[in-house]
Amino acid sequence: MNDSAIDYDRYDHVRPIRWNGETLELLDQRVLPFTVVHEICRSSDEVAEAIRALTVRGAPAIGIAAAWGVVLAGRGLETADAAEASRLLEPAIQRLNAARPTAVNLAWALARMGDALAALDPGDDWRAALENEALAIETEDLAANRAMGRAGAALIAPGSGVLTHCNTGSLATAGFGTALGVIRAGVADGRIARVFATETRPWNQGARLTVWELAQDGIDATLIADAAASHLMKTGQVQWVVVGADRICANGDTANKIGTYQLAIAARHHGLKFMVVAPSSTVDMGTASGELIEIEERDPAELLSFRGKRVVADGVSAWNPVFDVTPHALIDAVVTEKGVVERPDAARMRALFGA
Amino acid sequence: MNDSAIDYDRYDHVRPIRWNGETLELLDQRVLPFTVVHEICRSSDEVAEAIRALTVRGAPAIGIAAAWGVVLAGRGLETADAAEASRLLEPAIQRLNAARPTAVNLAWALARMGDALAALDPGDDWRAALENEALAIETEDLAANRAMGRAGAALIAPGSGVLTHCNTGSLATAGFGTALGVIRAGVADGRIARVFATETRPWNQGARLTVWELAQDGIDATLIADAAASHLMKTGQVQWVVVGADRICANGDTANKIGTYQLAIAARHHGLKFMVVAPSSTVDMGTASGELIEIEERDPAELLSFRGKRVVADGVSAWNPVFDVTPHALIDAVVTEKGVVERPDAARMRALFGA
Repeated sequence: MNDSAIDYDRYDHVRPIRWNGETLELLDQRVLPFTVVHEICRSSDEVAEAIRALTVRGAPAIGIAAAWGVVLAGRGLETADAAEASRLLEPAIQRLNAARPTAVNLAWALARMGDALAALDPGDDWRAALENEALAIETEDLAANRAMGRAGAALIAPGSGVLTHCNTGSLATAGFGTALGVIRAGVADGRIARVFATETRPWNQGARLTVWELAQDGIDATLIADAAASHLMKTGQVQWVVVGADRICANGDTANKIGTYQLAIAARHHGLKFMVVAPSSTVDMGTASGELIEIEERDPAELLSFRGKRVVADGVSAWNPVFDVTPHALIDAVVTEKGVVERPDAARMRALFGA
Repeated sequence: MNDSAIDYDRYDHVRPIRWNGETLELLDQRVLPFTVVHEICRSSDEVAEAIRALTVRGAPAIGIAAAWGVVLAGRGLETADAAEASRLLEPAIQRLNAARPTAVNLAWALARMGDALAALDPGDDWRAALENEALAIETEDLAANRAMGRAGAALIAPGSGVLTHCNTGSLATAGFGTALGVIRAGVADGRIARVFATETRPWNQGARLTVWELAQDGIDATLIADAAASHLMKTGQVQWVVVGADRICANGDTANKIGTYQLAIAARHHGLKFMVVAPSSTVDMGTASGELIEIEERDPAELLSFRGKRVVADGVSAWNPVFDVTPHALIDAVVTEKGVVERPDAARMRALFGA
């Protein structure tokens, strides 16, 4: 399939992050799909809080938002010197980096912003350099998603059904999406005949975001309970599970939304294929394997309440890990904009991504 | 462990079904745990509707409720002749039997009520016979649960953690519960050190009912998202998955709440044990294997709405199968009041339950 086969305007309606030259506008993903409202961030700390609170979520999207957060932090500084700006920005960058632990895109984007400053000569306009770098991170992410969409769809046989988890679409990225980009590309060229999406408890990214995005594209998707995935697989309606990632280790182990690991186990049990789709900014060659990834645990209230109202008996406790690690042995393909790693392991990952 | 080790009054606080001599009072399980209200059924058709609407749920409980439904149907008849009563009751029995398809306890209880009528001599008081039979079904279920609790707990090594799914407690039975009875017995004698319960979407039996029941017993249980089960297993905190059943086939294949199959796959992947706990009224030796079981699909609105309010974008469809089948090869033990079948297959099931 070549690029011309996809009408991107038809398949990509939502933008979660808008830099308007002065402030950062974030589409509030906590209240979608029935309330569409943007939160205006005027400082890097407001961006950090928006990342922490899930106003913006999705590994690539939080990286992009954080990059714009650095631009906002720069607005408050009076120095014209890039080296001094770099030093003064450090606390704001650290607060942004601490907003969420699991997705490596956050640290990656912030490191890239720091590197852009470090590369400047004295007298260069560091504010313009930061803004250009944030824009580049965003623009490259959109291009990466389109490339991954084509590469991932090419792995899928015509007439296949796919199951996806969480939200990996335009809302989670600069646009088009990672796993959802593969699904968009696969639907566009007729390879994908059936799309199923899990609810993705407790935050309901699948129920609230994924099927909403797809409905706007005119793509029929069927929502299922997370617990119905294996029963679905047994019916033969699905050939691939296609998911995104928050961190891909040097050996291919992949952290992603809680439940991903369970889907990978079930896919292998049924002889189905399992695809991870993420830009190279999600690849962390500095982390050897999945046991080394910090798994974020969020407030049990996400399980105990619904829209602020308690739905579980008082006194009951809950455990709310929001990511898990899928070992590389359960993954059939890691799809990035730099290429596809089939049956990933440390050697195959190194061959594409270096040491 | 002997019976005296369990203080049943401490571990069994809820009764879902109360026959008061004139009407059947059903604890409305749709609105628990924050609203405790009983629905009064005055006719068998009201009982059938309560079963269909999930006012009463749980395989043993719907069997018991249906038996009392037959008693209510008998109240409207004027004949003194048992054979004529049997003929006249047939339409009401058929409507009760059609209320839900998957749990065999419903058909089993209704057949038992019919058999009780058929065994009468002319002139016997068939109304008293029906009432006695319904009471026997209820009383025997409670006794079976206590026996299964002891037998199941005996399989579990001291200090173990268990994960359960859906609600299999007092609410699902005449009292004490099936899988939850094993957990109560195992906690009482110190074998079970940690209890985890899944939410059990979309109806939230785990989140609304199971942890509520256990909280009343003073048993600490930790709620998890359905999708977090495999991640939990990987942490080593759980040694057994303990679930109930809606129908156990002649070869040991077991229909139970959607998601059970996925837990069994994950348990096997992690080398954990998987226990099915159900009274012999749930064993259906007339159904050879799981493919022959009708899997109920309920209204997609259960996934698309919460408390009557739409939470998923308009135009989106959902698929809502509410049971799945776990093949016998993934089951380590079937625990009934008649005995335990380890590594169930057709021969071992036949050895305990006959042809």
